[in-house]
Amino acid sequence: MTYDINNVFAKILRGEIPTNKLYEDEYVIAFNDIHPKAPVHVLVVPKSAYTDFNDLMERAEKEEVNGIFKAVEAVAKQLGVVQGGYKLLMNVGSGAGQEVPHLHIHILAEKK
Amino acid sequence: MTYDINNVFAKILRGEIPTNKLYEDEYVIAFNDIHPKAPVHVLVVPKSAYTDFNDLMERAEKEEVNGIFKAVEAVAKQLGVVQGGYKLLMNVGSGAGQEVPHLHIHILAEKK
Repeated sequence: MTYDINNVFAKILRGEIPTNKLYEDEYVIAFNDIHPKAPVHVLVVPKSAYTDFNDLMERAEKEEVNGIFKAVEAVAKQLGVVQGGYKLLMNVGSGAGQEVPHLHIHILAEKK
Repeated sequence: MTYDINNVFAKILRGEIPTNKLYEDEYVIAFNDIHPKAPVHVLVVPKSAYTDFNDLMERAEKEEVNGIFKAVEAVAKQLGVVQGGYKLLMNVGSGAGQEVPHLHIHILAEKK
């Protein structure tokens, strides 16, 4: 995949499309998926322009990799899904169902 | 979840249960899931004793977090699934379907 600066997450990050941010830190923002596949379905979106997980691991420094996954854990805690359990999913590449060419991590849970 | 030193992945890591390792480095081993849910279904298992993703992010240093996810990318490359796309899945907690209380990352792909 190639990075398209007009993808929907890039527009959200630039503030060109409004969203209700559930969480924000140095590395990521998080918001609800607009087409939820589970009662809790949140997307954690890194602020930097990585197309997918491969691109992240090829180019990011370890501080950022760690920071992104620390943020995923923080969002899960904030959502209250740690006790009941949750799934973390990354679709890597369009052939695997990645719909937006900007890295994002799905947090899915059946209940809080 | 609490860590059980007799979980099946701990036994594999100690060599008490044989497995065909597809990959090994400082941080992880990888092998085929014995109950594959897709044509390619590989488990990447950190060598350190983390029960799940939460436990990893609470206790691991950034070098190890980065090392584990670098290894996941290396395994995906070795499997030949980067071009066609693949899914990365972590079930975090028994309520989310985590069957073995030792952190593992599923790599799933429909084809190589």
